[in-house]
Amino acid sequence: MLSAALRGGTADRATTFELFARRLPDGRRYGIVAGTGRFLEMLPQFIFDEAALESLAEFLDTDTLSYLRGFRFGGDVDGYAEGELYFPGSPVLSVRGTFAECVLLETLALSIFNHDIAIASAAARMVTAAGGRPLIEMGSRRTHERAAVAAARAAYIAGFAGSSNLEAQRHYGVPALGTSAHAFTMLHTTADGPDEQAAFRAQVSALGPDTTLLVDTYDVSTGVANAVAVAGPALGAVRIDSGDLGILARQVREQLDSLGATRTRVFVSGDLDEFSIAALRAEPVDSYGVGTSVVTGSGAPTASMVYKLVEVDGIPVQKRSSHKESHGGRKQAVRLSRPSGTIVEEVVHPEGDPLDTAEPSRVLTIPLVRGGEPVGGADLAAARALVAAGLKSLPWEGLKLSHGEPAIPTRQVPVRWP
Amino acid sequence: MLSAALRGGTADRATTFELFARRLPDGRRYGIVAGTGRFLEMLPQFIFDEAALESLAEFLDTDTLSYLRGFRFGGDVDGYAEGELYFPGSPVLSVRGTFAECVLLETLALSIFNHDIAIASAAARMVTAAGGRPLIEMGSRRTHERAAVAAARAAYIAGFAGSSNLEAQRHYGVPALGTSAHAFTMLHTTADGPDEQAAFRAQVSALGPDTTLLVDTYDVSTGVANAVAVAGPALGAVRIDSGDLGILARQVREQLDSLGATRTRVFVSGDLDEFSIAALRAEPVDSYGVGTSVVTGSGAPTASMVYKLVEVDGIPVQKRSSHKESHGGRKQAVRLSRPSGTIVEEVVHPEGDPLDTAEPSRVLTIPLVRGGEPVGGADLAAARALVAAGLKSLPWEGLKLSHGEPAIPTRQVPVRWP
Repeated sequence: MLSAALRGGTADRATTFELFARRLPDGRRYGIVAGTGRFLEMLPQFIFDEAALESLAEFLDTDTLSYLRGFRFGGDVDGYAEGELYFPGSPVLSVRGTFAECVLLETLALSIFNHDIAIASAAARMVTAAGGRPLIEMGSRRTHERAAVAAARAAYIAGFAGSSNLEAQRHYGVPALGTSAHAFTMLHTTADGPDEQAAFRAQVSALGPDTTLLVDTYDVSTGVANAVAVAGPALGAVRIDSGDLGILARQVREQLDSLGATRTRVFVSGDLDEFSIAALRAEPVDSYGVGTSVVTGSGAPTASMVYKLVEVDGIPVQKRSSHKESHGGRKQAVRLSRPSGTIVEEVVHPEGDPLDTAEPSRVLTIPLVRGGEPVGGADLAAARALVAAGLKSLPWEGLKLSHGEPAIPTRQVPVRWP
Repeated sequence: MLSAALRGGTADRATTFELFARRLPDGRRYGIVAGTGRFLEMLPQFIFDEAALESLAEFLDTDTLSYLRGFRFGGDVDGYAEGELYFPGSPVLSVRGTFAECVLLETLALSIFNHDIAIASAAARMVTAAGGRPLIEMGSRRTHERAAVAAARAAYIAGFAGSSNLEAQRHYGVPALGTSAHAFTMLHTTADGPDEQAAFRAQVSALGPDTTLLVDTYDVSTGVANAVAVAGPALGAVRIDSGDLGILARQVREQLDSLGATRTRVFVSGDLDEFSIAALRAEPVDSYGVGTSVVTGSGAPTASMVYKLVEVDGIPVQKRSSHKESHGGRKQAVRLSRPSGTIVEEVVHPEGDPLDTAEPSRVLTIPLVRGGEPVGGADLAAARALVAAGLKSLPWEGLKLSHGEPAIPTRQVPVRWP
């Protein structure tokens, strides 16, 4: 496309591309914007080095190679802040520049947002299901090794307390949290058989009694007894990773209390998702470890965001051959709410045609990039706060885990066609 | 775990960890091993640099940091060749070394194999569904930006013809294939309205008539007429990306033939998965573009591989508290077949206790790493050939797309407990 546009003289046309979702994943009531910070971090690094150019030289002409050699995105980007709620049709990102520079960003932008939004949107449902109890993301091993780092970041934005992914701590400051594995307990096996107490002693010796001991390697009751025998009643937590977690949590809580370990917490893990987390709400569980379901988006591993050309040289454009919802022209969005703060409607309107409304409203579209330079936008704490505020602003129905409609409707103010 | 093991004197114990799946994804009949080449490529790079050590110094003791500073895996790895079929319990990877070095590899190994196997296993079903017609992987934008590269590689191993991911071509030699987007057609809009022929002229001018023109931006019939008018009957292919692909493929075939473009191919895309690919088998479709479903594992985005300690200092170990299938001890595997080549059973047996069988059999476990050094194993063409041979060796039932049992049973020869 780039080669043909350069040759045809259309590469420099002024364009706007928008990134949005035609729909939420099946039955979801809201989505969480995530990936903005990663996109802004990577944008200045998105260049073509000699190794890339050499590979591209196998099939690209010299003019195109020459363009790529000097490439650096120099346009503008507006969009939703990271951590913002979104709904079908929300213009999450609006990218303006020449066709050449905007079309080159397509895969980068979609990959980042489709992945990170999928994770954050699933994670937020788990956060509300946990009702204030901390969640730890521990799914690195269930997804691609680099996706794992982004997933830890996205889950943290959505309200998880931290992640077992150490690279996410190093690179993004996501709190590193974790426990030990069954392998560590089984390591303490000799010719005389397993020795769970030896494993617990080694862990407590290294980390102190305020650690989390994994008690279900052999037998949960014996495991809890061994844990308290070794660490004493100041033991930080025990982890249960198998079996009926509700029943076991109650048994373990009683056993801990009877042993005087009344402040020892109960940490549960093992194929948890938002539904099983919610099902444990009445049980004496103190925190959750979540793996597979969060890093795979709990049934929706991609957010179905698309990146569509909406304007060329000031002219709104739109694909017309199908019934797919698509609206030409550059857009902005505002969200209307009741005086109580509960949101009621999202309005997507043509840029420069501000909505006239008496209702409390908030402009969602903010500047992210100007002339190729990121302007703000990579603050994880701010993104976390925005998710928390967004979840609070949802109508009651919006927090239900069951399949349903988007929590609020999106109104598209039609573009005035020229 | 590492810190506690170093402190407790158990870090140097000789261990074996095995990577395997307790079950296939729901209803799947076989899986495809993928990721081996990436694992072997990354193993020598898996070290802890100063930036990593500085971050870890926030919570690790000096002995552990010192161990990590000099870390390089020095053990042995055996496993299934990349492209091999696998079934529940197949010992896909067997990692031997000290506890310290083996436990450090856990997340790396699981991340790579869980991701790549999920993609390759889904892709192989699409390949059989396509019945010999070429498939192009074009899902980069629907998954994490680095996962996309691995996904292109895994789909290629499974039998896809190539990928639109250029980095997969540069790094792995996956053939780069692709078409243009609706944005390119819409770019050719002026104050007088859309100009599809201008877009087609620009593309043909840059790439010659043997290109693929996207004909469904505005109206498919007009698009096909415009495409042939511009490129002539030597046009390589037309692409349809929306609507009922079966009906449209027939209409477009007839139209192309009536225009004399009898050798112009019909390329279809748009939310295809193995089922919709199979449903198009009777239609005049020449090739398929597959995105979301292949890069997300078509409903199974992770392969549920686990990495379990099975032996410590020569003693088989096993978690006993649950009913999960787990078998201690170092294992190897062979696959038995009929004289026709159709496979009938997989036998997992203790290492060094070779199976005595009169049936044709093939040893599945091969050396991958010796003393930390990869020994062979990163040949994409060989992996592709192995997938093709594996699919041919499956019993007829094994290729059905519907939910079913694993195509062949796995027999676990019990370890002789000491």
